[in-house]
Amino acid sequence: MLVNNNPQRTIWPLPNNAGVGIIDQTQLPHRLKMLELTTLDQCATAIKTMQVRGAPLIGAAGAYGLYVAMLKDTSDDNLNAAYAALVNTRPTAVNLRWALDKCVVELREQPNENRCAHALIIANQIADADVDANFKLGQFALEKFKALYQTKKDTLNILTHCNAGWLATVDWGTALSGIFQAHRAGIPVHVWVGETRPRNQGAFLTAWELAQEGVPYTVIADNTGGHLMQNGQVDCCIVGTDRTIRNGDVCNKIGTYLKALSAHDNDIPFYVAAPSSSIDWTLDSGKDIPIEQRSGNEVSHIRGLVNGELTSVALLPDDMPVLNYAFDVTPAKYITSIITERGCSDASSKALLSLFPEHKDTHHAESMVTN
Amino acid sequence: MLVNNNPQRTIWPLPNNAGVGIIDQTQLPHRLKMLELTTLDQCATAIKTMQVRGAPLIGAAGAYGLYVAMLKDTSDDNLNAAYAALVNTRPTAVNLRWALDKCVVELREQPNENRCAHALIIANQIADADVDANFKLGQFALEKFKALYQTKKDTLNILTHCNAGWLATVDWGTALSGIFQAHRAGIPVHVWVGETRPRNQGAFLTAWELAQEGVPYTVIADNTGGHLMQNGQVDCCIVGTDRTIRNGDVCNKIGTYLKALSAHDNDIPFYVAAPSSSIDWTLDSGKDIPIEQRSGNEVSHIRGLVNGELTSVALLPDDMPVLNYAFDVTPAKYITSIITERGCSDASSKALLSLFPEHKDTHHAESMVTN
Repeated sequence: MLVNNNPQRTIWPLPNNAGVGIIDQTQLPHRLKMLELTTLDQCATAIKTMQVRGAPLIGAAGAYGLYVAMLKDTSDDNLNAAYAALVNTRPTAVNLRWALDKCVVELREQPNENRCAHALIIANQIADADVDANFKLGQFALEKFKALYQTKKDTLNILTHCNAGWLATVDWGTALSGIFQAHRAGIPVHVWVGETRPRNQGAFLTAWELAQEGVPYTVIADNTGGHLMQNGQVDCCIVGTDRTIRNGDVCNKIGTYLKALSAHDNDIPFYVAAPSSSIDWTLDSGKDIPIEQRSGNEVSHIRGLVNGELTSVALLPDDMPVLNYAFDVTPAKYITSIITERGCSDASSKALLSLFPEHKDTHHAESMVTN
Repeated sequence: MLVNNNPQRTIWPLPNNAGVGIIDQTQLPHRLKMLELTTLDQCATAIKTMQVRGAPLIGAAGAYGLYVAMLKDTSDDNLNAAYAALVNTRPTAVNLRWALDKCVVELREQPNENRCAHALIIANQIADADVDANFKLGQFALEKFKALYQTKKDTLNILTHCNAGWLATVDWGTALSGIFQAHRAGIPVHVWVGETRPRNQGAFLTAWELAQEGVPYTVIADNTGGHLMQNGQVDCCIVGTDRTIRNGDVCNKIGTYLKALSAHDNDIPFYVAAPSSSIDWTLDSGKDIPIEQRSGNEVSHIRGLVNGELTSVALLPDDMPVLNYAFDVTPAKYITSIITERGCSDASSKALLSLFPEHKDTHHAESMVTN
């Protein structure tokens, strides 16, 4: 999407097989800084430290990470080592394992001398497929917004949580794709952006994206969403997902569940933008998803500008005990619709499988493997 | 309660009619700083800038503010001017107007030469009544915790939001009073402390209070409470209130509503500690409460330690639009019990009036006045 009025992706191969370029998302919204990743370690660190983040982008970054590893050494040993180094950088996003599995299976079939070029081809394919899926998904979300606008005939107030914009993907975004498309189509939209503690991806990333695209928005504390919904100030919610289960349970950034409860309590549609790469067909229920715990430092410290320098600031004394879960699971019953690149689905196994019939047996096949 | 193992109140008259002392709550948890307020302006500023905050403490601070005003000039004009200066410092807390009204009515009946001494007597009475009410209320909350502990026979995990501890009152606190009493009675308790964005009163004040009293606790992002409740890690919630309506609707710190929804969704008791001074008998419904909007700077900036100095840090660029509601209203149907100094009540007009029958006609009387 637009950055200083120029189209931009979040990750791209560098010329002359030099590695990959990324936007260092830890510097936003204060500073737009591009990084060049030329080693596997740098790629793994970029995912682990969330210089790149967002489930779909992590998938692409994993694939490009394997490509960077192949630039140095195309042996089976190095391929396996690179897979191992990348796959555990983030535990929750199903896209990462999906992309790495796809790459490794294909690369193993290639002779060593082809692996480097082929790794780039697959990574580019994954990136392009992400862009394509997000655009299509956004078209279906746009239809939802159009329908709401036809009823309301006034600015649509859309609440989102965390960052499920283009910075979380390769381009377009998931939850924000439809918002960008609605704005470009002339539908008046205004976005409530929950700051999304503890890492503030809403305030730091979503708000910046919307500003760059010229979409009106307002940043709010996460606590504020319920009050706005009670008072007619939210027409719908739309969020992304790190992992959606075949039964329609949605794992997403911590706090999503609370917003879904509030939307349900106030009869407000709650949409989840879920490209199929983030759907996990192997689990039975959201209760089976392991929830990532991250460092308490993310709660006790915060990044801000001090004398123009981005600085980590201590909010709490060092000895205060802190717990930091990164995700929660919203039960399917609180989700109005799951929006995929193939269309919209009720949050149920039956409805999701009617859009993705090829996954009818994925669950059983995987179960047999793990048994 | 205890500060460095010594008993302490949040507000106290200084010797020799010099004014009043307070703890500057904007400096916690990093620094324990006492302030001496010797002018009406200082008292009004202390309330406005939240050096003192919390509905019950604001009431007492208002009364002591009138006393400070009387120290300089006991005329009717000054009494009226002081009332006007204090009453609009914070719009939501019903306690402030209640305390000021009580003081002004009584002081007008006093000859000028008595007003200074009498103002101190009333302010001390209001402070002592607050301490007494909070202790009694805590006894009733203790009964709830005892009952839960008798069933669970293991550490009680209690979730609270914002600061409804002794720092929000003169002593004991409201929501925390029962927790302090349970801890002193040997019931093992652990408190989940929501940080309470945007002003972080949970992380900055509640956590500090609990640490000083030796009560185990863990600070969490506000987004985390729902996940903990879904996963059996919360046995009950208890919060304070800035204004509770006769029908049982509870106005409290923004975000309370979301926690109540989650407690309801997971069959977890949701208690509101409401001394009668915070019950508003004059309104019909929580929807009638004006909700205070505070500066967006509270969201876009945050206080933290930079090189050992408490500093305001910019989280967001200056031009990002921000909205900051301070409170929300939790509908009565999501509240398990309202705990007052006279006992526990269902969140309904009938139940509250059976505890406070003297307010049966308050509503009608007030309506007549305003008509």
